[in-house]
Amino acid sequence: MKKLNIGVIGCGFMGRTHSNAFGKVANFFDVPFRPVLKTICARSGDRARSFAERWGYESTETDWRKLVESPDIDLIDIASPNDTHAEIAIAAAKAGKMVMCEKPLGRTPAESEAMVKAVEDAGVANMVWYNYRRVPAVMLAKQLIDEGRLGRIFHYRTVFLQDWTISSDLPQGGEGLWRLDASVAGSGVTGDLLAHNIDTAMWLNGQIEEVTAMTETFIKSRKHNLTGKEEPVRIDDASAFLARFQNGSLATFEATRYARGHKALYTLEINGENGSIIWDLHDLHRLQYFEYRDEGRLRGWRSIHVTDGDHPYMKQWWVPGLQIGYEHTFIHQVADFLSGLGSGAAAAPTFREALQTDYVTDAVLRSAVNKTWVKVAS
Amino acid sequence: MKKLNIGVIGCGFMGRTHSNAFGKVANFFDVPFRPVLKTICARSGDRARSFAERWGYESTETDWRKLVESPDIDLIDIASPNDTHAEIAIAAAKAGKMVMCEKPLGRTPAESEAMVKAVEDAGVANMVWYNYRRVPAVMLAKQLIDEGRLGRIFHYRTVFLQDWTISSDLPQGGEGLWRLDASVAGSGVTGDLLAHNIDTAMWLNGQIEEVTAMTETFIKSRKHNLTGKEEPVRIDDASAFLARFQNGSLATFEATRYARGHKALYTLEINGENGSIIWDLHDLHRLQYFEYRDEGRLRGWRSIHVTDGDHPYMKQWWVPGLQIGYEHTFIHQVADFLSGLGSGAAAAPTFREALQTDYVTDAVLRSAVNKTWVKVAS
Amino acid sequence: MKKLNIGVIGCGFMGRTHSNAFGKVANFFDVPFRPVLKTICARSGDRARSFAERWGYESTETDWRKLVESPDIDLIDIASPNDTHAEIAIAAAKAGKMVMCEKPLGRTPAESEAMVKAVEDAGVANMVWYNYRRVPAVMLAKQLIDEGRLGRIFHYRTVFLQDWTISSDLPQGGEGLWRLDASVAGSGVTGDLLAHNIDTAMWLNGQIEEVTAMTETFIKSRKHNLTGKEEPVRIDDASAFLARFQNGSLATFEATRYARGHKALYTLEINGENGSIIWDLHDLHRLQYFEYRDEGRLRGWRSIHVTDGDHPYMKQWWVPGLQIGYEHTFIHQVADFLSGLGSGAAAAPTFREALQTDYVTDAVLRSAVNKTWVKVAS
Amino acid sequence: MKKLNIGVIGCGFMGRTHSNAFGKVANFFDVPFRPVLKTICARSGDRARSFAERWGYESTETDWRKLVESPDIDLIDIASPNDTHAEIAIAAAKAGKMVMCEKPLGRTPAESEAMVKAVEDAGVANMVWYNYRRVPAVMLAKQLIDEGRLGRIFHYRTVFLQDWTISSDLPQGGEGLWRLDASVAGSGVTGDLLAHNIDTAMWLNGQIEEVTAMTETFIKSRKHNLTGKEEPVRIDDASAFLARFQNGSLATFEATRYARGHKALYTLEINGENGSIIWDLHDLHRLQYFEYRDEGRLRGWRSIHVTDGDHPYMKQWWVPGLQIGYEHTFIHQVADFLSGLGSGAAAAPTFREALQTDYVTDAVLRSAVNKTWVKVAS
Repeated sequence: MKKLNIGVIGCGFMGRTHSNAFGKVANFFDVPFRPVLKTICARSGDRARSFAERWGYESTETDWRKLVESPDIDLIDIASPNDTHAEIAIAAAKAGKMVMCEKPLGRTPAESEAMVKAVEDAGVANMVWYNYRRVPAVMLAKQLIDEGRLGRIFHYRTVFLQDWTISSDLPQGGEGLWRLDASVAGSGVTGDLLAHNIDTAMWLNGQIEEVTAMTETFIKSRKHNLTGKEEPVRIDDASAFLARFQNGSLATFEATRYARGHKALYTLEINGENGSIIWDLHDLHRLQYFEYRDEGRLRGWRSIHVTDGDHPYMKQWWVPGLQIGYEHTFIHQVADFLSGLGSGAAAAPTFREALQTDYVTDAVLRSAVNKTWVKVAS
Repeated sequence: MKKLNIGVIGCGFMGRTHSNAFGKVANFFDVPFRPVLKTICARSGDRARSFAERWGYESTETDWRKLVESPDIDLIDIASPNDTHAEIAIAAAKAGKMVMCEKPLGRTPAESEAMVKAVEDAGVANMVWYNYRRVPAVMLAKQLIDEGRLGRIFHYRTVFLQDWTISSDLPQGGEGLWRLDASVAGSGVTGDLLAHNIDTAMWLNGQIEEVTAMTETFIKSRKHNLTGKEEPVRIDDASAFLARFQNGSLATFEATRYARGHKALYTLEINGENGSIIWDLHDLHRLQYFEYRDEGRLRGWRSIHVTDGDHPYMKQWWVPGLQIGYEHTFIHQVADFLSGLGSGAAAAPTFREALQTDYVTDAVLRSAVNKTWVKVAS
Repeated sequence: MKKLNIGVIGCGFMGRTHSNAFGKVANFFDVPFRPVLKTICARSGDRARSFAERWGYESTETDWRKLVESPDIDLIDIASPNDTHAEIAIAAAKAGKMVMCEKPLGRTPAESEAMVKAVEDAGVANMVWYNYRRVPAVMLAKQLIDEGRLGRIFHYRTVFLQDWTISSDLPQGGEGLWRLDASVAGSGVTGDLLAHNIDTAMWLNGQIEEVTAMTETFIKSRKHNLTGKEEPVRIDDASAFLARFQNGSLATFEATRYARGHKALYTLEINGENGSIIWDLHDLHRLQYFEYRDEGRLRGWRSIHVTDGDHPYMKQWWVPGLQIGYEHTFIHQVADFLSGLGSGAAAAPTFREALQTDYVTDAVLRSAVNKTWVKVAS
Repeated sequence: MKKLNIGVIGCGFMGRTHSNAFGKVANFFDVPFRPVLKTICARSGDRARSFAERWGYESTETDWRKLVESPDIDLIDIASPNDTHAEIAIAAAKAGKMVMCEKPLGRTPAESEAMVKAVEDAGVANMVWYNYRRVPAVMLAKQLIDEGRLGRIFHYRTVFLQDWTISSDLPQGGEGLWRLDASVAGSGVTGDLLAHNIDTAMWLNGQIEEVTAMTETFIKSRKHNLTGKEEPVRIDDASAFLARFQNGSLATFEATRYARGHKALYTLEINGENGSIIWDLHDLHRLQYFEYRDEGRLRGWRSIHVTDGDHPYMKQWWVPGLQIGYEHTFIHQVADFLSGLGSGAAAAPTFREALQTDYVTDAVLRSAVNKTWVKVAS
């Protein structure tokens, strides 16, 4: 099997999920390339070395520019905070590397557009880690929708509910908490959580045309870890919007980190003339499916335990009834990417596709400020 | 509409459910007879009068023998404790009255057999209040089974779990607590709860041939309300048995009042070659139905919300999605009884059918004592 | 017990729920007045007579004006279509009758305001049938919120999802289908369904200050039953809005009759700093409750089966674990009304309270047209 | 980190789960030894080489005796069919290797006893892969029980329901189907599935004292893959038993491969005076927990999503709300084994503990034949 040398930048939460994915994919999937964990890059050499030992990286690096230029590396994977995405991705593309990037692409449409231009100008393979597309149950939903089983679509509704920032004692900024620092993250839950909802929604249901939104910052100031001082919170703690899709369906979107009792409750529902689908991340193997064609008195939401050999990705894992987890969505995404490389097909979502999600989040944030409906760019 | 004069004996819990059923049935069902709440009979005249006022009975009685002999009464309904069932039912049948009796029939097979003989000798309409057959979802299950949709049956499993007698401070005997007094109740959970499980099971799945059982009395003595003294508890607090049905399927049955967290969790499950069904009383409108003929990747347990117009009994109530409750099972049973009277068809279960349940509970209690498998009489 | 003579106008769906409530309340609740089903009024004398026989009304009437003037009647209950509410209510109030009215109050704020003025000028007892407040689980939620157990509220989300108008073959107008005729109904799902969501939401969480909304009519024309011709559909088939409450919390509301697979799925969720609550009408006895004070590793959503004697209203019914249904919410509302009469306390919601809901639905409909945020009147 | 050289025998389903566990454990857990995938042993050299390439084994072997004798190997892991367990384990122990063995230990108590004697005589570390103990939710249940939170235990009920052998076209014997061949497997669902239920049950609730059981073989003959002929099926397709635990609690156990609609539905429930617990494998992260000490009106089954940092094992994985899967139970078991090696503590269950499960399955099988209660050996 051909090898593909991977350089990963960032050894936080996403550094772990990506490393695991590159390391495990060939145990379970028949892929045309075997990823090699070549180099891990982090600002702190100690941290990089410790991470390298744990995950089996061959070497470490503290300067991402060197990594990007290194002839030993085939693919640059960006798992560092949002404010680094654009610069690294553009440099990597210019250096002719394949590029994978954590979502969202950039902090602003301008950053994202530059990133798209860079990879397209360079003609390098590229992909954004919208991992939830690769949950087997979500992929099954995609199949059903693409087969037209739902008929005309009327409604889409989706939320991403968390509760981990309710305490006002929680600081902002720095290691593990940069998601609360607007200068690093770009936005709050809109870019962090709603971006997932939007990516999946457009993948399943097509373009979003216009939105009206509302955002809120419940805790107005928090201690900043880098300055040590109480500072205004500039991210959105909660964000909700109404939308119209190009296909005429209506949608509600909501994300928050203030929904007490929910840890990472990403849910989606789509209602069509002939059928409906519900899914949620807390029970990620279940696809709730309603089929109107069923005999009337026997119609009911089917709770499909998506763990069979004829379900997406599941043939590679265990036997019916036995679950996989969150990390596997990343493994699936790498498997699809590698297969795509082998067959010449683009992996999804590409930078260009992910840019469209950034256009929606941008429209949402502007609508919330202007208190008007906003058309989504494309 | 022709009138049917009802005399109800007992104004406890079951006196209420029956009175409500007789009073309400003609508001919702097109029945050939309209029940008239003629006389309520209770040992205490005060209690009878208060009950009569609340429910609109025309008169009261304290001596059930007078009620049974009264020419004003068409139907005697026995809602009094188990130790009174046989004597009243036999006298009522001899007096030529229709007889309805709360379950179980008698405290022993001998009592039950005498009751069956009495109603059959007299040729009077008769019925036992195994009300759970008339839950719409359970009736739908019956339809599916009778249509043969499940194919060959392999398994039946059913429990009835409660937790209201865990405290050792709870006394036994007297008003509201006679179910803990073996001399009145006949047995504990075997006759009180398992009898329901058994009735439904045989109705759905045919005869039970043999059983091996285990019973337990966790609290060995309790204060007796009538004597005022601590006395041995002689009922079974918990009862479980394995069974083989005539059709070759295997079963597990269990009932207890010591299952912390469950109030009245009556559940049943039946597994056939082509399909399976699950139901529970705590969510009584839901029928869980699995159909193997569904396309493989889309197979799942359907959660059927049995509230549509084409579901059993539901056309008479509200609109899809809106629930009915426990009391409605009694209304349905009266509706079926009255329709049966009109059409000449026997209502179910008759005393004879209910006798078979008593044969099973008797076998269970003997098996628990003898620690052997016991064949069920028939 | 004192009697209260009831005259009910309308013998459709709501005529049935109200008649049942008046008829059953005294069987189960200790109320200071016993309602008497005095007169049923319908345009068709045949229909009125048939209804009277089924429900035990003493007399019938075809002209509501005569009923309103009748000295035999203490209370006028309006269960007829929306376009009759204002005229009848105002006349009844002027005649000095107590008035109950199906929701929504009027078709427009102007109608509703006139109704409020009429009952307040006349000083008569009045109530609007927002029955869902009286689901035991919803009332328990109210208790918890009023006790302050949830702490500062961040979010409220609620939907009312149905699927019964998806077929384009369904006509509009006439018996049973006037809800699709804007001239009779006033609006579509906004007034029919969202009004319930809004009433409960403001009862639980206070005033709604401003909204941004979107509505849609998916099927643009339907045959009209009264004209026999295909005519434009002028109601909203679906309606969704974002809202801000006076207490600073954010909300999403949505109602539709195009959510395939849902019959009458009214759900609500409220997230506070210290706890959260979820409820839905399809499993109406379950209150999902999350309490942050629970020990960390043992925190989880509690599925409370609201059927115990210490739960709202349930002591009057059966025993723990045994359910009641949809119709009981109306019985509870009558019980509360009668108790309120006895004690002199106003029953809720009064016409004035219900008017506030109409202000919100009006703001929603205007926002959908203007595509702007709209402040709610008060 | 010290290395531990692993030799795995068998590259079927269990060869994969074990290899994955050895390979992944050090990425996530801080263990004192890093397992090295040294040698994979299979009868077919081709199969072994293909497996070695996929999983990164350094070498392959076709003769397990050579592997057992190899000085390069520290630990022999037995992942081959049941009829090979005893011989290999005894030889490995005699060669001074640590030994891990798939469950059940032997096909008969005699085989199992010899295996226990061998590892104890040799004084080598040993462990049986009863992996379900290491589901985080199950481990949390263990903690709660050990803390005494449930109080006196009354009931235990557990099932393991599958449906994969219903078709009579399914053959028996050979690759992947040896579980249907009694000479290889020892028994049917009793040893394959119920053994898991029994292991967990005794770990949570103590010794089982006596049982009464029933087994059935629904399909009496199947084509045998090795002989090519239709041959009698000698395994039990279904097995159920009643049991009494030493602590006085009652239990029901059932396993089957004929429960249409269930894939691998391993469930357990335990009812104590003060609390109850429910868990099932199809939603493995959920622990249903009922606590009687909660305020009465707010008591309900808590659905604990066992994915937090203070839940067993979960700190090593992702963030709250994000799931792990089936394979992780094996990783946890290796992590515990390695930690035990480091600290000198025995890992659980040892061969000796697992022997007790075999005594129960043996009693079950004898009871089913004799139709009597059978005392369990110890």
